[in-house]
Amino acid sequence: MTAQQTAATWRDFEPMQLGPILGNALDAFHENGFHGTTVRDLARRVGVTVPALYYHHENKEAMLVALLESAVRNLIDRCRAAVTEGGDDPVLRFSYFYEAVVLNMTHRARPSALDSEVRHLSPENRRGYAAVRKELELMLLDLIRDGADRGVFDVDDIPETVRALLGMGQSIARWYQIDGPLTPDEVADRYTAIALRVVGHPTTS
Amino acid sequence: MTAQQTAATWRDFEPMQLGPILGNALDAFHENGFHGTTVRDLARRVGVTVPALYYHHENKEAMLVALLESAVRNLIDRCRAAVTEGGDDPVLRFSYFYEAVVLNMTHRARPSALDSEVRHLSPENRRGYAAVRKELELMLLDLIRDGADRGVFDVDDIPETVRALLGMGQSIARWYQIDGPLTPDEVADRYTAIALRVVGHPTTS
Repeated sequence: MTAQQTAATWRDFEPMQLGPILGNALDAFHENGFHGTTVRDLARRVGVTVPALYYHHENKEAMLVALLESAVRNLIDRCRAAVTEGGDDPVLRFSYFYEAVVLNMTHRARPSALDSEVRHLSPENRRGYAAVRKELELMLLDLIRDGADRGVFDVDDIPETVRALLGMGQSIARWYQIDGPLTPDEVADRYTAIALRVVGHPTTS
Repeated sequence: MTAQQTAATWRDFEPMQLGPILGNALDAFHENGFHGTTVRDLARRVGVTVPALYYHHENKEAMLVALLESAVRNLIDRCRAAVTEGGDDPVLRFSYFYEAVVLNMTHRARPSALDSEVRHLSPENRRGYAAVRKELELMLLDLIRDGADRGVFDVDDIPETVRALLGMGQSIARWYQIDGPLTPDEVADRYTAIALRVVGHPTTS
């Protein structure tokens, strides 16, 4: 999951390779929330003893941090590959970036939805996660600024637009279901068109 | 909190009148999550016995439902008053609606953020909450359709635009802090401008 994404693969989502402990932690946090999951529950799910669990992860919060950070690092890798594929075209770079975000929120809805548990992290871990995620925000900030500088985007408040676009993307993970009526590609198409409107570059309808 | 909002008051946010049980439940769910809160914790916070708590609310989930529904009903009342104040102007009606949403997500960030606990409800309660919230979606759908019919908005996919706009608004409750750098009015101004772009009616910058 942490392997670098190449331009050819940022649209592909293989099954995640989380391993038994983090895989079960993801299931448990999804079903019962972070605070509703005990280390004992986790050990039972994994089929190991509690001490064996602590051998691999310092505590339950460390597992949540590992899941959150691996999810956001994977997303950042995809976004970087997407931007690279966009070459020197600011509209394409932005569109591919946002497509990568939306594909991630649909194909990886469960780990992405863990973002709502961030507020339960300790201040230190919250800062650490925010620092990793900051890279995603800065990438989008640069893409919008570049498009504005080159006259293809028209944006009033770039930092707030970044936050709004990432919030809009993040919200998809809350409702998306892979067996629902929309494929990830369909959601990505629609949301990318909306994102282009937000940056003042509407596609022709 | 469930009183009808008049056109004069939809921008005003008085302290919520939740009562001791739901007020403490909101604090506890916010701090520890729904699954991380026990009825025993709640009784201790309120200063009553567990049976006394059950006298008022069937169970812990019923308290979450009451909080969620009162929050969304209050939001719907505000939005209705906002739309009324917009009179017959489709742009104003839409702008006031979205302003009401954003003001709610900032002034009432904590109850609004409870929305992320909806997935822990039973299917029946989830359907019930979705039915209440549906009214908000339908209001926004009508506003956008009306603006499109009257030629002031230009939208490709109205239902998806509704979902994206509400998701963008909902995401504010996740990061907004009342003692932070932005006032609710500032956030509302910026997000309403972004929302107008999304429906193809950008304000002049």
